[in-house]
Amino acid sequence: MPHIDVNNDFAGIRGLMAFRPETAEPLAALAEMLLRDNEGLSRAERELIATRVSYLNDCFYCHNSHGELACVYLDGDRELVDQVRKDYQHAAISEKLKALLTIAGKVQQSGKAVQPEDITQARQEGATDRDIHDTVLIAAAFCLYNRYVDGLGATTPKDLSTYGPRALQVAENGYGKHIYTAAQPEK
Amino acid sequence: MPHIDVNNDFAGIRGLMAFRPETAEPLAALAEMLLRDNEGLSRAERELIATRVSYLNDCFYCHNSHGELACVYLDGDRELVDQVRKDYQHAAISEKLKALLTIAGKVQQSGKAVQPEDITQARQEGATDRDIHDTVLIAAAFCLYNRYVDGLGATTPKDLSTYGPRALQVAENGYGKHIYTAAQPEK
Repeated sequence: MPHIDVNNDFAGIRGLMAFRPETAEPLAALAEMLLRDNEGLSRAERELIATRVSYLNDCFYCHNSHGELACVYLDGDRELVDQVRKDYQHAAISEKLKALLTIAGKVQQSGKAVQPEDITQARQEGATDRDIHDTVLIAAAFCLYNRYVDGLGATTPKDLSTYGPRALQVAENGYGKHIYTAAQPEK
Repeated sequence: MPHIDVNNDFAGIRGLMAFRPETAEPLAALAEMLLRDNEGLSRAERELIATRVSYLNDCFYCHNSHGELACVYLDGDRELVDQVRKDYQHAAISEKLKALLTIAGKVQQSGKAVQPEDITQARQEGATDRDIHDTVLIAAAFCLYNRYVDGLGATTPKDLSTYGPRALQVAENGYGKHIYTAAQPEK
């Protein structure tokens, strides 16, 4: 049960968003911009960065929600998603994405942890300034979303089978207002 | 110098926002909603929470920017702002705000650090569910803004006298698009 009475049955961040639609709108718009953009980083790469940071922040709801999204974009390769979560250096992903995941992991600790050599390494693997910008902002944004969800004790379904159908809906419709206003929220 | 070429002379988060206006818009809208709302928490209280969290995250640009904003709303009481930064338990602020700053400090560490007794304490001091919600989200949002600024090595003016005039402008005009599109950015 959440720490506050959100007065709805939506799970995770959706319950908090429905409680306070004024702040939900920019939060959803930010996710849409950062995770659905297809320029530079792919949607799969963006969701993998979100999944890894949420895993590092130990946010069960977020790392499973975004892990399932990544899985959708990776044609169901759940094993790859799980390897990125736990041991991305040995995952079958590009060296560029590995360098960006290193930056994301530093941002999760602190902005100051990012060193010029981390940026140089990412550039050497082909990352553009925009890719680096988006990686830092995705990682920073999930330091927000994860703390919002767990800091208010949002409802977190333990049954992993509920995350897949939601991910399919988001993959199809994006992070719009429907996330927290759908007529029939599942618990 | 920032880690990426932002191609402008704006200081702090403003330079990053001007580099990527698509993500700047929801980031600015979120700040406007969270820091300028006058219902429940006052603007001064909201900026004090932002200042404290930014101080805990050791983000020089943010804790000075928002500290100056708080100072504007507190009729120039810089000493009070500084005490909230460093030792809020002994500051001349309400017991309610102290309880909310305790929650904000826990969110800065991790969402999971917030305990039911922290919420109970805030309620006993008169905090509503909306106050608690906004406190958690302000704290979480500054875990984003601070990491964004320092993770990309945004330009950080060391001269504290430059923060006051900016704070006056934001107090007057809010966190709108003008933040990163003003014709004559100061360095």
